[in-house]
Amino acid sequence: MRKPLILVTNDDGITAPGLRTLIRLMKEIGEVIVVAPDSPQSGMGHAITIDSTLYSKKVTIDQEDGAPHEYSCSGTPADCVKLALQEILDRKPDICVSGINHGSNASINVIYSGTMSAAIEAGIEGIPAIGFSLCDYSWEADFSFVGKSIKSIVSEALAHGIPKGTVLNVNIPKTDAEPKGIKVCRQAKANWKEQFDKRTSPTGKDYYWLTGEFELLDKGEDTDIWALGQGYVSVVPTQFDLTAHHVISQVNNWNLNEH
Amino acid sequence: MRKPLILVTNDDGITAPGLRTLIRLMKEIGEVIVVAPDSPQSGMGHAITIDSTLYSKKVTIDQEDGAPHEYSCSGTPADCVKLALQEILDRKPDICVSGINHGSNASINVIYSGTMSAAIEAGIEGIPAIGFSLCDYSWEADFSFVGKSIKSIVSEALAHGIPKGTVLNVNIPKTDAEPKGIKVCRQAKANWKEQFDKRTSPTGKDYYWLTGEFELLDKGEDTDIWALGQGYVSVVPTQFDLTAHHVISQVNNWNLNEH
Repeated sequence: MRKPLILVTNDDGITAPGLRTLIRLMKEIGEVIVVAPDSPQSGMGHAITIDSTLYSKKVTIDQEDGAPHEYSCSGTPADCVKLALQEILDRKPDICVSGINHGSNASINVIYSGTMSAAIEAGIEGIPAIGFSLCDYSWEADFSFVGKSIKSIVSEALAHGIPKGTVLNVNIPKTDAEPKGIKVCRQAKANWKEQFDKRTSPTGKDYYWLTGEFELLDKGEDTDIWALGQGYVSVVPTQFDLTAHHVISQVNNWNLNEH
Repeated sequence: MRKPLILVTNDDGITAPGLRTLIRLMKEIGEVIVVAPDSPQSGMGHAITIDSTLYSKKVTIDQEDGAPHEYSCSGTPADCVKLALQEILDRKPDICVSGINHGSNASINVIYSGTMSAAIEAGIEGIPAIGFSLCDYSWEADFSFVGKSIKSIVSEALAHGIPKGTVLNVNIPKTDAEPKGIKVCRQAKANWKEQFDKRTSPTGKDYYWLTGEFELLDKGEDTDIWALGQGYVSVVPTQFDLTAHHVISQVNNWNLNEH
């Protein structure tokens, strides 16, 4: 049987330890091709490059532990997936995995996530796709306990297929031991309470740094944030049909056509 | 009664004709404050600026037809909304309107849309929000038939409130007469068939332009694409809880914890 073809990408850039970890794990499961941004793209959401040019080149990042085929790309994570599928791969990958992100993409963070935008882009193109994140923003994050969960989730996804119109958003708690297990969850309701740090430049120009605090607005015990807090890996099936179907009938009662 | 406070933003930049049209229309309904990108941000998805600085300044774009308070911002549409709510406005706006985008944000385009990311950002912060787009990419697009629908939708949204967790994605067909009416729809299933235009730079480096064709995968007569094709304005209630709730039980049947 031919080994599954696995497209690996991320948003922290092709040299990120999280990506290098994911490549090593995926090589145990299938044939790996990497197409990843040449520089960090965190917080890029689902950005794509439409008004400037894209560069891509074959690279070798790690002679021993890397994949035989790795490409860096000047674009966003969504660009990487588009370029991989159209220009680089000679067959459709069996699965696309993105990450391992340095930092949580649980709850509302999924909206801002470049890691998840790569997975969603693959999902739109009909490829089973999973975004992986470790809840530790550090570049030196400890990835030693992520292997078992990630291989389990990818193997099950390959065995069962991921339902059409859905990709998986996987977050792994920051722990110093094996996670307690894996829980399928819904996205917790939350937002960021922004605080702008206002400063003045040496030339007298005001500028801001965006900072903020995560504010959980959800006490449910079926959410990703709850599962992570209990030491579990969270898996949220995530869709790109954004229609709030349950709201259509309500808005239909407005007098939109009577003005 | 105090006039409603309306925050106006977009992704095409503060000088875009679509934004200037929206400001004029909103001044008929309420008190308008504009916080918009200082340069075009199309295709930025839900990007935010986390690793660089943000600049913002009070500007006057149009002495006669502008709003009394306008601010340009160096960031993305989502940044503009965050900055407006935290630093610029002294009270919570009654509604946030984004656009009018030069080009369609119907169907899967919502995922890549900076216009909609601004509306979604406001929605996350609990502000009723609407993104408006005209299905004409031209900078010289004809906005003469958009007024009635836009004022009707904003007035109804102010009167009824928009259900929590939902923002509206409004697309207006390119027509040379009044649209036929307004239809509440679901997001049509579609994707983009990418074609990369590969070229070589004067110094011999290969580069790509991302191009593509919209591919409709949905024959439904309740979709935004269908309504637009029939000459109606489409309104899709759009949510930022991306959980595919109907898929949770299915993924729960996988053997995730038995590896």
